[in-house]
Amino acid sequence: MTDATRDIEALIDLMARLPGLGPRSARRAVLHLIKKRGQLMAPLARAMAEVATTARECANCGNFGIADICDICRDPRRATGEICVVEDVADLWAMERGHAFKGRYHVLGGTLSALDAIGPDELRIPHLLSRVKSEGISEVILALNATVDGQTTAHYIADRLDGAGVTVTSLAQGVPIGGELDYLDDGTISAALRARRSV
Amino acid sequence: MTDATRDIEALIDLMARLPGLGPRSARRAVLHLIKKRGQLMAPLARAMAEVATTARECANCGNFGIADICDICRDPRRATGEICVVEDVADLWAMERGHAFKGRYHVLGGTLSALDAIGPDELRIPHLLSRVKSEGISEVILALNATVDGQTTAHYIADRLDGAGVTVTSLAQGVPIGGELDYLDDGTISAALRARRSV
Repeated sequence: MTDATRDIEALIDLMARLPGLGPRSARRAVLHLIKKRGQLMAPLARAMAEVATTARECANCGNFGIADICDICRDPRRATGEICVVEDVADLWAMERGHAFKGRYHVLGGTLSALDAIGPDELRIPHLLSRVKSEGISEVILALNATVDGQTTAHYIADRLDGAGVTVTSLAQGVPIGGELDYLDDGTISAALRARRSV
Repeated sequence: MTDATRDIEALIDLMARLPGLGPRSARRAVLHLIKKRGQLMAPLARAMAEVATTARECANCGNFGIADICDICRDPRRATGEICVVEDVADLWAMERGHAFKGRYHVLGGTLSALDAIGPDELRIPHLLSRVKSEGISEVILALNATVDGQTTAHYIADRLDGAGVTVTSLAQGVPIGGELDYLDDGTISAALRARRSV
């Protein structure tokens, strides 16, 4: 094997580590990139290097941005006293696409899981509890996935917030059982947010 | 929209142009990359920039490499007098994975297509004919896809090589290794029956 194929094979191996791509589709993608190396591959490499350098996690909510505190947390119009709790940044983006929520977010980074030994301290739950006090929050909206782990986590957070003087709500039924936010259409997310119920 | 999300959105748009990825899976891939920006995103950006700069098409056969003439064309052990004609570099790589062919290749870059106005001159067919003379080729193996356009192209090339003093062959058609008759299309079964061999 020579340097040429080694470079290309290394690129295919890296591409195959992306979700949704296997070895075969990674090879197809790399062939496509080489054919369009001027129009697509070079700009993609630059965009990726740029984001790899600048992207960071918001120290407050866990969203991705280029500053220590993300745009949503810095936006004074979003200090509505409402925090929407999501599992993942993908879910935050899905909520934002719905354009229905005007408050701030808190990204847990996963769900409680006894099997994977993930407890509250692995999930930024303590940070959520302190934000509820320090930011004068009146309502915590639990927008967790309608999976067993998601609902377990929602109940745990509702328990911990019991007596903290905040309303705890969750997205309305309408999220399909076993469904994940990132795969829902925007209208369903908006409807579920409007119909949120007290836990 | 701020610079942060604009950079990330631009990256998602570029990723969505890869074959096999749509807007949704591109978003998932970019989120995964941002989470693993140190271990995966930065190395991937570097590998992509490297290949975008160095990759080029072999002036002889059309394979991808980092030199004007690719490794296969430069390898004296592969001057066997056999040329394997394929539609695309992906097919060349598939043949190489089989480790069964020891000669050289010729990548057409597509198939003849009246609908898309693709004639012989768009396909490096004239170059194939001149290689057959200049490289002292004794056998041309047509490894084109078993589609209508692929077979039309194979027949055209066989016609053009008639009288050039070379043997023209094509890959055998039949039941794939491990294939089950019940899942095969009728055309394949008919072809395999017509080409049956003595055991």
